[in-house]
Amino acid sequence: MATLQNDTLLRALRREPTPYTPIWLMRQAGRYLPEYNAVRGRAGSFMALATTPSLATEVTLQPLERFALDAAILFSDILTVPDAMGLGLSFTEGEGPRFAVPVRDEAAVAALAVPDMAKLRYVFDAVGEIKRALDGRVPLIGFAGSPFTLACYMIEGGASDDFATVRRMAHARPDLLDRLIDVVARAVRAYVREQAAAGADVIMLFDTWGGLLTAPAFERWSLASMRHVLDTVPRGIPTILFSRGAGDRLGRLVASGAYCVAVDWAVDLDAARRTHGAQAAFQGNLDPQVLLTDAATVERAARAVLASAGPAPGHIFNLGHGIVPATPPELVRVLVDTVHRESQRREP
Amino acid sequence: MATLQNDTLLRALRREPTPYTPIWLMRQAGRYLPEYNAVRGRAGSFMALATTPSLATEVTLQPLERFALDAAILFSDILTVPDAMGLGLSFTEGEGPRFAVPVRDEAAVAALAVPDMAKLRYVFDAVGEIKRALDGRVPLIGFAGSPFTLACYMIEGGASDDFATVRRMAHARPDLLDRLIDVVARAVRAYVREQAAAGADVIMLFDTWGGLLTAPAFERWSLASMRHVLDTVPRGIPTILFSRGAGDRLGRLVASGAYCVAVDWAVDLDAARRTHGAQAAFQGNLDPQVLLTDAATVERAARAVLASAGPAPGHIFNLGHGIVPATPPELVRVLVDTVHRESQRREP
Repeated sequence: MATLQNDTLLRALRREPTPYTPIWLMRQAGRYLPEYNAVRGRAGSFMALATTPSLATEVTLQPLERFALDAAILFSDILTVPDAMGLGLSFTEGEGPRFAVPVRDEAAVAALAVPDMAKLRYVFDAVGEIKRALDGRVPLIGFAGSPFTLACYMIEGGASDDFATVRRMAHARPDLLDRLIDVVARAVRAYVREQAAAGADVIMLFDTWGGLLTAPAFERWSLASMRHVLDTVPRGIPTILFSRGAGDRLGRLVASGAYCVAVDWAVDLDAARRTHGAQAAFQGNLDPQVLLTDAATVERAARAVLASAGPAPGHIFNLGHGIVPATPPELVRVLVDTVHRESQRREP
Repeated sequence: MATLQNDTLLRALRREPTPYTPIWLMRQAGRYLPEYNAVRGRAGSFMALATTPSLATEVTLQPLERFALDAAILFSDILTVPDAMGLGLSFTEGEGPRFAVPVRDEAAVAALAVPDMAKLRYVFDAVGEIKRALDGRVPLIGFAGSPFTLACYMIEGGASDDFATVRRMAHARPDLLDRLIDVVARAVRAYVREQAAAGADVIMLFDTWGGLLTAPAFERWSLASMRHVLDTVPRGIPTILFSRGAGDRLGRLVASGAYCVAVDWAVDLDAARRTHGAQAAFQGNLDPQVLLTDAATVERAARAVLASAGPAPGHIFNLGHGIVPATPPELVRVLVDTVHRESQRREP
């Protein structure tokens, strides 16, 4: 593999000094880019795009051609894992993901097994092809959904406003949720190990829905299984853990042993870094809606996030959630350039 | 006014010992009750029900006839205030509230004024009639939306998945949001003063959407205006402040001076009470989905909330959000009886 020309992300994840604050953006390859929509149109469906390594490579690199981003992130979806478990994933226009077979009872849970990783070979092939195409420009982030977040979609059979079925199962059938999370966590472990073996420089876990659990349920189903996954990542590969609605759980997330905790825009980055900055790096946390305003507002809001993060090493600039499809690409450029310009520090 | 026969709520709000943990439930008068749906059907519309004091009184008392609840809460809606400001409130079946006139620009904000409280006389008349009908059985809770939460609906023109317009205004036009919040806060001040004068024993503020703001924006628009409202409530009337997604902001909410902070089910009540229990009472925080499971699960989950609240005075049992319409009334009875039975302590 080529030597990395830009290792600011890896250094920031290790809380080492960097000449400026590295930045990448959740969903940086996506529908706000006309060149993405062109490839998506040619592919015919989201899944066709995600399962064809050459196309996944093409869209992964698109935002790097436009903006001076400090990382690439694998173009894929967290639901590839339950799809490989036989649940039949599809994406319907405007309604998001759908599973043909929801998992809600004893029999459905008992029928699940860790899938043969050969079924996910298209993901690992994409990782390899992207790494070759990057040729050392920036690191590549691989990722997976947290076991609990995957279980949420598997139980509901798709997206949900309130994940009511999941919450009821957590209260009424904790034993069943235990068994479901166990098999999903073993699948995710195998999945991230293969991504690392294929060349991913960083592994990120997305715990989008852990925030809807009570405190003891979060510990039991969200956090414990994420620790189980993090434990399998080779020691030299930095890890990022994104938990939406982390609020008062930052201390527990930091104690998971992840290199970095990624937070949404409601988190007070100043307080988080003062309290936990010696134990982990932090990633975030601009409100994605800022990118739908104007250049002056983007610059002001970016400076505010940099100020709240403070000068200590260990901050990776990002949004608090994914880029919104209506975002004008020109404002993404303003953001990236502002963060690089305003955060410049001397080398140590 | 009749002397209160059951003052456990007021004593718990003052963090005085009570013989058992008082309980009431957000949306305890509502669509899960067949007798509510009957009155709602007769009234013809939600607004007709809310604006007719005799009907509002009837539905306010309905849950007290069924269950041994320790408080009544005024049947009304937080959006009565912007309706009185001339925004034209209506409720569409399945889609929730709608304003005929959203408030999104300079001219719309400049056109707003504190409404004549005579336009909200139906609310204060309902408070008086409910108090007479209660005849001292339990205290009556009056309420209002927080100025920021009202502004959210006013700006979007109704409910929203993400309140994206509000978030963009907060970043791009903070001056405009300042002016909007200012006039709404003055209206809410007058509104809660009138409810207190009409006989409300407790005033509660609902800050449903403050959690979607960044930390400095929460301080500027959500919390500061709630403090401004709380300051106008007569000193002897206990106050409750509900903030959804409070997470790491509990300390700031407690410092607002409210008697009680009401929290959603994601908050760790044990940690909250250990850290802040000497400064405020806490209300909450059972997941409303528990009431859609079975009696054994309800009992177990209720005991878990009581255990997490601990034995110190100053806990009011409630849900972490409103009762879901599909809730079987029989499980509400199981909850109320379990909380009373399991929390019995000796009088001091």
